[in-house]
This record gives sequence, C-alpha cells and structure tokens, in this order.
Amino acid sequence: MHGLMQDRPLMISSLIEHAARFHPGTEIVSRLPEGGTHRTDWAGIRRAACQVANALEALGIRPTERVATLAWNSWRHLAMYFGVSGSGAVLHTVNPRLFPEQIAYIINHAEDQVLFFDTTFAPLVEKLAPQLKTVKAYVCMTAPEHMPSIDVPHLHCWDELVGGQSDAYTWPEFDERNASSLCYTSGTTGNPKGVLYSHRSTMLHTLMELAPDTFGISSRETVMLIVPMFHANGWGTPYAAAMVGAKLVFPGPHLDGQSVYELMRDERVTFSQGVPTVWLMLFQYLDANPQIDPRALGVKRIGIGGAAVSRGMLDRFEREFGAEVMQGWGMTETSPIGVISKLLPKHDGMSEEEQVKVKLKQGRGVWGVDLKIVDDEGKVQPWDGQAFGHLRVRGPWIASGYFKGEGGSPIDEEGFFSTGDVANIDPDGFLQLVDRAKDVIKSGGEWISSIDVENAASSHPGVAEAAVVGIAHPVWQERPLLIVVRRAGSQVSAEDLRAYLTERLAKWWLPDDVVFVDSLPHTATGKLLKTKLREQFKDYVASAKGA
Amino acid sequence: MHGLMQDRPLMISSLIEHAARFHPGTEIVSRLPEGGTHRTDWAGIRRAACQVANALEALGIRPTERVATLAWNSWRHLAMYFGVSGSGAVLHTVNPRLFPEQIAYIINHAEDQVLFFDTTFAPLVEKLAPQLKTVKAYVCMTAPEHMPSIDVPHLHCWDELVGGQSDAYTWPEFDERNASSLCYTSGTTGNPKGVLYSHRSTMLHTLMELAPDTFGISSRETVMLIVPMFHANGWGTPYAAAMVGAKLVFPGPHLDGQSVYELMRDERVTFSQGVPTVWLMLFQYLDANPQIDPRALGVKRIGIGGAAVSRGMLDRFEREFGAEVMQGWGMTETSPIGVISKLLPKHDGMSEEEQVKVKLKQGRGVWGVDLKIVDDEGKVQPWDGQAFGHLRVRGPWIASGYFKGEGGSPIDEEGFFSTGDVANIDPDGFLQLVDRAKDVIKSGGEWISSIDVENAASSHPGVAEAAVVGIAHPVWQERPLLIVVRRAGSQVSAEDLRAYLTERLAKWWLPDDVVFVDSLPHTATGKLLKTKLREQFKDYVASAKGA
Ligand SMILES: Nc1ncnc2c1ncn2[C@@H]1O[C@H](COP(=O)(O)OP(=O)(O)OP(=O)(O)O)[C@@H](O)[C@H]1O
Ligand SMILES: Nc1ncnc2c1ncn2[C@@H]1O[C@H](COP(=O)(O)OP(=O)(O)OP(=O)(O)O)[C@@H](O)[C@H]1O
Ligand SMILES: [Mg+2]
Ligand SMILES: [Mg+2]
Repeated sequence: MHGLMQDRPLMISSLIEHAARFHPGTEIVSRLPEGGTHRTDWAGIRRAACQVANALEALGIRPTERVATLAWNSWRHLAMYFGVSGSGAVLHTVNPRLFPEQIAYIINHAEDQVLFFDTTFAPLVEKLAPQLKTVKAYVCMTAPEHMPSIDVPHLHCWDELVGGQSDAYTWPEFDERNASSLCYTSGTTGNPKGVLYSHRSTMLHTLMELAPDTFGISSRETVMLIVPMFHANGWGTPYAAAMVGAKLVFPGPHLDGQSVYELMRDERVTFSQGVPTVWLMLFQYLDANPQIDPRALGVKRIGIGGAAVSRGMLDRFEREFGAEVMQGWGMTETSPIGVISKLLPKHDGMSEEEQVKVKLKQGRGVWGVDLKIVDDEGKVQPWDGQAFGHLRVRGPWIASGYFKGEGGSPIDEEGFFSTGDVANIDPDGFLQLVDRAKDVIKSGGEWISSIDVENAASSHPGVAEAAVVGIAHPVWQERPLLIVVRRAGSQVSAEDLRAYLTERLAKWWLPDDVVFVDSLPHTATGKLLKTKLREQFKDYVASAKGA
Repeated sequence: MHGLMQDRPLMISSLIEHAARFHPGTEIVSRLPEGGTHRTDWAGIRRAACQVANALEALGIRPTERVATLAWNSWRHLAMYFGVSGSGAVLHTVNPRLFPEQIAYIINHAEDQVLFFDTTFAPLVEKLAPQLKTVKAYVCMTAPEHMPSIDVPHLHCWDELVGGQSDAYTWPEFDERNASSLCYTSGTTGNPKGVLYSHRSTMLHTLMELAPDTFGISSRETVMLIVPMFHANGWGTPYAAAMVGAKLVFPGPHLDGQSVYELMRDERVTFSQGVPTVWLMLFQYLDANPQIDPRALGVKRIGIGGAAVSRGMLDRFEREFGAEVMQGWGMTETSPIGVISKLLPKHDGMSEEEQVKVKLKQGRGVWGVDLKIVDDEGKVQPWDGQAFGHLRVRGPWIASGYFKGEGGSPIDEEGFFSTGDVANIDPDGFLQLVDRAKDVIKSGGEWISSIDVENAASSHPGVAEAAVVGIAHPVWQERPLLIVVRRAGSQVSAEDLRAYLTERLAKWWLPDDVVFVDSLPHTATGKLLKTKLREQFKDYVASAKGA
C-alpha cells in the first residue's frame, strides 16, 4: 500500500525555480577571466539557465546527451549547472588541469556534443579540437569583444548564442533517476573514470549538505566557492546555495592569495570551501602582509577536503581568523560528501589537545553514508579507532559503477562501494584516513601507512617534499623507500633522516632507504603521482637490512 | 539514461540505525505518566524499536497493517515510530484529545489491528474497546506493576510483550513510496480525515527539517518535544533528531507550566517546539514565580506552529528568554512543514517594528513546498503582500488525497493541494494567514478575515475570548457577528466594543452586532469550533444596519 503523498520527482530544475522565486535579489558575484567583477542575482541566474536550455535546443542537443565545460567558477558555469541538467541533458564538467591527452580522452569517452569554455582555455581548445570526435559546437563563455581568434569549427560566443535566446523555458519533468551530470575522477591512481550523477542523488546530497552537521548552509550565508565546479559538482554547493538562496561569490581563475583575500573582504564572505593548497597560498599572502588582521574578515567557517588538513592549518584558521574548520572526506564517487568532522557535545569538556585530535580526523558519518572497513579478505573490522581496513561506503549519493562500465563493478555483496582508501573508525564513528590502498606498504603481513611516514619526514626542516613507496623485499614482501626533495640550501643526509624518524615512528615503519631527487611527479591536480614513482623505483634494491 | 548511483530506497529504519551507530550514548529522557523520569539513549531506542518489530511479528501483524497509539510523548512512543514503520506496518498515532466517538470512528476507519496506549488512557480504552471492530490486541505501554485492571480482551503489558522480545531484527527494504504512518486531521472544520505518509515523504521532510532555514536541528541540540507525537508526526522532529543524533526530552503528560519549566532547566534544553497554548501555560507559571530568570535556562530557539504567534509571545521569548522564535505554518496534510518565518539578511537593517511585522507572518517557503494563492475562480493572485486568496501547496511531502478517498480529491489541475486556508504572500515569499476559507466572511463580494476581527476584539481588556462568524444578510450576503466572553468582572458593552473596534478596523469590517456568551465551543485540540457557532447563530438577525 503506497502512502497518499504527492509523487513529485526530485529535479535539479526545482532548485533554480525556488531560488528565483524566494530569493530573486540575492547576489551572485563573479570575478571574470577577462578581468573585472560581474554581479547578477538568483533571478538573473534563472534567466540565464533558461537561455542555456533554449540554446541547447537550438543546437539540437537531446536529453541525456553530454554537454562539456572547461570553465572556472562563474555565474555562467552556475547557469549551466541548472540549464543543462534541468533540460534533461548531462553536464560534463571537465577538469582543465588534467593533461591535454587526458582531456581529449575524457571528452571523447563521454561523447560530449558541445564544449563550453572560458577564454583562458581558448589555446587549449584550439589544440584539442582536431582530436575531439563528437563535439559539434564550441561556445566561448564570454562577450563578443573578448572572443579569442582561434581556428575552431562551429565556434559561438556565449553572449550571442545564449544571450540571444528567450528566457522563457518550461523545465521538463522526468524520472529522477535520470543522469544529470558527469565528472571524472582526478586520475591519481590510474586513468580518470566517469562518475554519472542522477537528479535524485544530487538532490538528496544537496538536502543533506544543508544540515548543520554537514555544511549548514543557509539563506543568511555568503559562500565563496573556491573548490572548482569541475571537482565533484563543486562539492554540491552550487545546488545547496540555490536551495536556500545563499549569496555566492566566485573567484574565477584568480586563486592567488591576494585575490582570494580581497574577494573575501570585499564581499563579506561568511563561509568558504577549498582544498588545502589554496589555503596555503592565502597564508603565504598573509605572511607577506603582516599588517592584515584576518579576524576582521568576519569569516565564520572554512570547509576543507580532498586532502588532509594539517595541524598548522587548523590552528591558523581557528586562532587568526576566529573561524571554525570543517574537514570533510569524500571522492568524486561520493558526490562528494562522505564524512565531516564536527565535534560532538561529548567533546566539549575535553582538553584542547584532545579536541584537536578529533578535529584532525577526516570526520564523522552523516546520515545517508553507511561506512565499513574490511581486511584483505573482506572481514569487517571493529570501530575501535585502531584497526584499519579498506573503506567501503553505501548510500543514495554513492556511485554504483563508472561510465561505460570502466573498471568493472566496484560494489560488494552488501552493496558497498570500495573506495580504494584505507581508514580506521573510532567508537564515535569518526573516520581517520590511513592511506590509499594502492599506496599502503605491506610488510610481513602488516600495513605501513605511506602518508604517516611522509608526514613525519616532511616535518624535518631540511625536507621540502617527501614521498614513500613500497619496494620489493625477499623476506618482508614490501619495505618503505623514502624519496626526498631537499629544501633549498639544506644538506640533510639519509642518516640524519633515519635518526629523526627513529624518534617518531615504530621501528618496523622506518624506511629501508632514503633517495634524494630534484623533484617529485604530481598529477594535474597536484597530488603525488605514486604510480609513476613506483614504476621508477620498481627495481630498486635497498642498501639497509630491513626491519 | 539513468545515472550510475546506488539505488537505495529511503527507509525510516535507516534513521534509527544511523542514530544507534553514530550516537549510541546520546540520551533520550522521558517523564512518565506513572511519575518519575526514564533515561535511555539512541542505542536503547534502537533495541526497543527492534523489540517492537519482533512483537508485531509475534502478534501476527503483516506489512501495511495499521498499529495505533493513544500515547504521550515518550521513549516507548519513539521506539514505535521506528519499530512499526521500519517493519513495514503503518503507525497510526491517534489524538487522545478527540471526543471518544471521534476516536472510535477513526480507529475503525483506519482498521487498526493493535492499540498501544498509555496508562492515562486505560479508562478510555476500556470504554471504547467494545466498539473497536478490528483491534485484535491491546498493549498498555507500561511496566507490570502499573498495569491497569481494566476489562479489555487480549490485553498485554509492554514490558512483558515487547520487553520480552529479542532485540535482533533485520529491517526489511521495500518501495520507499509505501505507507509509513497515518494521522487524522484535528477535525476543526469537519470530521477528521486520514493523511497517509510514505517512507519517501517522511525522509525528504526530515532532511529539509534539518536545514538552518527550517529548524536547523543538529547533534549538538537538546530538543524538548512538547508538540504531541500524535500531531502530524510530532512535526517530524522524532525523525530529525534520529537523523543527527540529537538529545530528546519528552514531557509525557506533564504539560503544565511548572513541569515544562523544570524539565527545560534540568535537561539544559536548547530548542523546544509546541503550539501557542502550551507556552501560555509556561508564561502563567513564570508570572506566578517572578524570581525565576528565564534567560538562565539557556534556551536558544522556540518553534511555534498550529496557530498564530501573538506579538506578546514573540516579545516575551525574545526579551525574557533571549530565544529566537521560529513560527511555522503547516497542516497534518503537509507533514507538517509548509513555511517557516526566518528573517533574511535584507531585514537586518530594518527597524525592530518592521522586523516584528515580518516575524509575525507565518513564514517563508522552504524548498520542496510550492505555494500559490488563487481567487474563487482559481485565478492566481500576485505576491504583493496585499492580495489574498485560497492557499494551495505542492511538493513531495504534501498529501495527494485522504485515506480511503475521504472528501474526494483535494488536488487541482497543476497538482496543488487545496489547504482550506486563505493567505497573502509578499514579494519575498513570506506567507500571512488571513483566515480559514470556511471562516472568512464574504460581504458584498469582498472578504473579511474573522481572525483579524477576533484579534482586534481580544485586545480589549474586558474581553476574555472572542469569536467572529458570518450571518446571512439580504444585501451584503454575509456580515460579521462578534461573539464575546467577558473577562471576569468586566462590564464591557456592545457599544464600548464597537467604539473600540472603530479605531482599529476598516468601517465595513465592523461587526454588525455583538453577542455576549458564557463560553465558546472548542475542538478537542483547543481550536474554536466555528462550525458549531455558525449552526447556533444561523438564524440570527442583526440589529444594526450593516456597512
Ligand atoms: N580530507 C581528506 N583527507 C585525506 N585525503 C582525502 C580527503 N578527502 C579526500 N581525500 C582523498 O581524495 C580521494 C578522492 O579524490 P578524487 O575523487 O578527486 O580523485 P582521486 O582518487 O585523487 O583520483 P583517481 O580516483 O582517479 O585515482 C579520496 O579517495 C582520498 O584518497
Ligand atoms: N502558524 C499558524 N498560524 C495560524 N494558523 C495556523 C498556523 N499553523 C497552522 N495553522 C492552522 O492549522 C491548520 C492545520 O491544523 P490541523 O492539520 O491540525 O487540522 P485542522 O485543520 O485544525 O482540522 P481539520 O482539517 O480536520 O478541519 C491549518 O490549516 C491552519 O488553519
Ligand atoms: Mg579515487
Ligand atoms: Mg485542516
């Protein structure tokens, strides 16, 4: 027996209709790639979204076809979030920081029909166009006076193609399980794989994102979205902001410390989200300008994810900004919210040191994300904060597979998705990331966290960057190799580092050898490319004895 | 093309699993009908919910069958919210304040198979039992030593029947559109009608309830639920509290001012929800005990709905308690959240008087509730804060009809539900309730709000209570009749009141006549029973001329 409630599908278009109806005048501020600042509001975004939908119709795009963006965070990108998905097409946000051959691979794999791009990427697009097999039209997201002179077929100017459309459009209603957007993973552990979100998964994720235990976004908020809109739906915040009519502030390509600081200050930002790297750039700017008092910014909360938050970053935001730090763990495959670190009332009475320990964990599960950790044989591990295992997650905004079945099924018998991460979980449900499964070093049946060893090595003043990979060992199966980039001017030796680490790590975690290099390989998104390092050092034979 | 996201149904059972997994030790405190205070936690509620599910199985209850409660707010009632719905049966929360013949009608109409009841209602149950055609078993929600000696067939004691079950239970998974609970309307305008919620509608409503723009409930909260769990799912808060693991405090039947005050104080309540009447009782207690400083309670927010919030109530909570008041409008048919009054950033700069005007409106639409107002012909009225019309609402937690098709289809061509309320909506989307459609007085084609006239009359110091109904008029069709209960000792006359109202109302809104009575008829839930008044005064001929 069904309930007698209205059968309304969860549609992304309902978000922009709500925002325009209840918060028409709330501002959307964008710093543009061409320079200058653009101001519109939710009513304006709705009009632009309707124009996008009409433009797609004019280009002959049919429901479920993919429409790609190579774009910074901006009002035009925001309008596409609603206009493309709302019309029934699929928004494919391409990460422009990937290597050009990865971008071409992704666009062809997704069979994108139209490519929208910012002026910044005009040279890239000109270079790629001959390889793009399915793209029928290119749209540069700019005004006529900024149109690049590039040799690309079927090139349109946003203001002419989109701006020339009627802003009257009736959103279709369809199955909420239909695909809404597509985003490829960062390619840290292999080729990027496509995650295909649905209207339903997006809407449920958005609802949960509003909860105070998650990001707690409200109509009173001014959100500066630093995390790119091509990273897992901009962490879902473009949707969440529309659901409550929050003010949105977009830095565009201007992610240097000074630009971020000035935008925060000028727009009275209350909440901002980004990966650790961008905050480090902000800190550098503040270091160089000690006259600035970050507390005067009035920023209340900072959301950080994608990589671990360091103690220093936590302290600085809390003490100098007076802001609360909310760390999150997630993946492209989890929409991306998986866990969020928020103290519980039971932590109130604890010492600051104890609280910091909790805050530096990746976070606690929110409703909608079931967690489990299992050993190599799939046996469930206890939540004691010690035992660690492969992290698996389940829920309505977690992927069930990859686009075109790439990489086979990541789902176990109980319906959980294998994250490829290794973690422990404490009795309060706080998850702590130990390592990536592919990076963990298996020594004599026990696991060594490459991240822990890297962190310990990086804390040495002579070390600029450190990586740890496993090398084959006849007795222990694998042993850690430490690869170090010395800080300019430093003469730190392998002996120095071994002595330093001996005080900080269990004896059997100590690297068998230390190698010095000039630089380490990174992915397009700045993560350590350990696949390459493992390849490079696969025949390395350690000089030391092993533990 | 579907997205590639996990296809997980939205199940109420997932709430209690989440709460027990991530917040096992968070307390659930109940004042019991038998006296004393009971303390358990979310892990305990989960165990009890599993026992409830096993007890239903033992009683032979099958999925979709209805299980009724006649119960106060308590941990046992909470366990039933999850245990009954989670097992696939339908929880029917019966309002014990209805007249006994209404209760019998409702239980028979719902075809309830089991009736769970608090000791308070033992005499009522004994009286009703012979009329209840479908009830196969009765369960008194108490311990053996408090079992009433009543003559009722198949009578069980909770602690024996439920407490004797295993607390191991695997929640079934099924279609999220399946019915989860059933609640009848208050019967203010006619016979109570059954609203049948689904797992899907309940879960979406719960997610939205967490948003800071709605009730903003978090794991850091201690919620005292004063609104009865037999009123539209306790406003959804039992579910919301589980979704985030908030501490819950239940007053049981102890709703007098002193009990409410003491429980608030002793349990450090941060948020509480209730109808205006219960707050008036709290105020009376505080009036009698001027030594109490309500600010010391530390209550942060008060949610009020079901009837309009008065200026005096708003002021008192803000000034004496230092608490934020969140008014909401809703109905049994809207799960119940429809609109919530929360100031926008644009109101920050306004004067206090202007802010109060906004706060006293019923509230602003949240995502998921589409609003429209239409005239008698169904023509949509503008959102200008002036024009008013019949309020219609649409969304995934709004009813599409009543149980067993009672009252025909309340849905219009666009899928909107007709609320029976009359309202205006301002350009910011704030809704103001004008009247119930059945109570509005139609004078010469124009509408007079009976509520506005009642409020004006009630503000006269000589008036204890006032009601306004329409009486037939040869020229104007209908004219207002004011019916007044004088305050003890007052000699206020019809002339006095007319003079008083002349300064406060438009001339054509002035009542044609004033009648003094000793008392006014009320519904079981304390609302004015205007159907009865209209019946009583249907042949009344006004002595005045009419406007
Ligand atoms: N708070 C965090 N702390 C540490 N690591 C994190 C955190 N949040 C995310 N991560 C890491 O980022 C990963 C998700 O990143 P993303 O989805 O961008 O692609 P990727 O895993 O880097 O690339 P690919 O899947 O293509 O190899 C997680 O699996 C985890 O390893
Ligand atoms: N904040 C509010 N201010 C004024 N009136 C309100 C408010 N909230 C709810 N109401 C009134 O309460 C009604 C909903 O009450 P409920 O669902 O308990 O049953 P009822 O309408 O009183 O009874 P019935 O539908 O059986 O006649 C709304 O339609 C509205 O008239
Ligand atoms: Mg990955
Ligand atoms: Mg009603």
